Amino acid sequence: MTRPAPEDVRTITCVGAGVIGGGWVAYFLARGYRVVAWDPAEDAETRLRHLVGQAWPALVELGLSEGASQDNLAVEHDLATACAQADFVQESAPEDLELKRTLLADIDAATPPDVVISSSTSGYGMTEMQDRCDHPERTVVGHPFNPPYLIPLVEVVGGTLTSADVVAWTSDFFRHAGKSVITMDREVPGFIANRLQEALWREALHMVAAGEATVEQIDLSITDGPGLRWPVHGPMLTFHLAGGQGGMAHMLDHFGPSLLAPWTRLKAAELTPELRDAVVDGCEREADGRTIDDLVAERDRGVIAVLRALGRA
Amino acid sequence: MTRPAPEDVRTITCVGAGVIGGGWVAYFLARGYRVVAWDPAEDAETRLRHLVGQAWPALVELGLSEGASQDNLAVEHDLATACAQADFVQESAPEDLELKRTLLADIDAATPPDVVISSSTSGYGMTEMQDRCDHPERTVVGHPFNPPYLIPLVEVVGGTLTSADVVAWTSDFFRHAGKSVITMDREVPGFIANRLQEALWREALHMVAAGEATVEQIDLSITDGPGLRWPVHGPMLTFHLAGGQGGMAHMLDHFGPSLLAPWTRLKAAELTPELRDAVVDGCEREADGRTIDDLVAERDRGVIAVLRALGRA
Repeated sequence: MTRPAPEDVRTITCVGAGVIGGGWVAYFLARGYRVVAWDPAEDAETRLRHLVGQAWPALVELGLSEGASQDNLAVEHDLATACAQADFVQESAPEDLELKRTLLADIDAATPPDVVISSSTSGYGMTEMQDRCDHPERTVVGHPFNPPYLIPLVEVVGGTLTSADVVAWTSDFFRHAGKSVITMDREVPGFIANRLQEALWREALHMVAAGEATVEQIDLSITDGPGLRWPVHGPMLTFHLAGGQGGMAHMLDHFGPSLLAPWTRLKAAELTPELRDAVVDGCEREADGRTIDDLVAERDRGVIAVLRALGRA
Repeated sequence: MTRPAPEDVRTITCVGAGVIGGGWVAYFLARGYRVVAWDPAEDAETRLRHLVGQAWPALVELGLSEGASQDNLAVEHDLATACAQADFVQESAPEDLELKRTLLADIDAATPPDVVISSSTSGYGMTEMQDRCDHPERTVVGHPFNPPYLIPLVEVVGGTLTSADVVAWTSDFFRHAGKSVITMDREVPGFIANRLQEALWREALHMVAAGEATVEQIDLSITDGPGLRWPVHGPMLTFHLAGGQGGMAHMLDHFGPSLLAPWTRLKAAELTPELRDAVVDGCEREADGRTIDDLVAERDRGVIAVLRALGRA
């Protein structure tokens, strides 16, 4: 077994050193890992060290792990040499399916057996990408958000050939590395956060195309509107508070009919009793004993803190 | 002319004292206005004073205006008496079209001529609601976000019978009262922020209905993911940074094809050259001379500040 325990990972190989790959490099360095990077571009090392230098002040401000240093970065010119050293591989190549299928097969051939190979892809499922690997069971999606050195979320999901052990190991590893992990039990195009973000983005594009709102109005409507609530509670608990003391149940029973209104170009899911209960029960589970009054107070403190933090109070 | 200048408004009549109306009452009191409230519910005054008391600590923390006091609230039992005193009326009745049409006509009959009557509606256009008023030209939508005492955004939009002067006056008034105002030049169902928020909400409901994500995963995907960027830059400038140094132009040229992918149930707008340019130009206008590097540094500072503010750094 060449796969270390999640907490024993020391050397991480980052394949691809653009905005996302470079962000991962900076993050892993700040968490005290040794990082080996590979990227086919001529000026990859220069650009990567610039990118890491640019991210470093933010990482210093958030607090470096013991032993963290930009000096722990080695840039290799040969992919196989880079992968041979890995306790864990994070691939962040451009979103091109053919390229990723081939690249993952090359990584797979060069990486010690059992070492986990994770892909930053935002567009593909691992099932589509792992088919040329000899050891597809250790390939998995670990989808970050830009910039990976600041945004905590990583979505972990396997393909049909990925072993359940690898999905669990990868979730544990990212958590150990300080990330906030969502482990998905099935492949969904766009995973979770991108589906939500993309729905908003597409509606925004429609509005610009139709002359209904300008780019500036769209951004202002979020930065000064619901965008202030979302980092506090997320969209579901936020609406749990839109129903007053009745919470999500009252909200769905009262505003359910508005799901039929053309408030967005996206047709709503049918609000069946099952869906209603799933949403209400989910909010109760998430609230975990916090009353509506508790959550209102928490939201108020959170929104004020965010406004202050951004110099807008 | 009984309409005061926006900065000379002293008494605001709030019609409806639920979560939204009560939030308005608290906000206007904190900004130093005298507030007259009316609500048909038996226990309206008790509930309203409780609501205002609950909001007050947050408002104190943000800083009260000179002369602000909960004692400046009067609850009237007669709608006409309440409206007769108004320099400005904010209506926040339940979302029921028939109710609002009748109520606005009653308010219109009781309010001094020319005094502006604004509706908190999130679901209707003023065109649908103002038709029974004798003076529909002074009725306008002023749509807040929950809680109105903390979230700065107000969307202002008139109906077909609303005068342009009233739309301008209302925007000035809300700005003077400390709000962040978007003045829309046309009625769009859901206005702007709700269209965007609703697209996300509907996608979330679909995901729960299809078993693709739990309520908790949906919230976590936003609070620990894109929700941390949105209050800093909004969705458009956020994606301006997803293209690296090439900004939104590179982003659209590179990720444009993904608009065809099933990343959400909402079909995307066709990315015509006109739409591409409108989005790119809008981002440039909004960036207003800030380079990509400037914006990246600003985003990093902002995300760190938000993480810290919420105790998650």
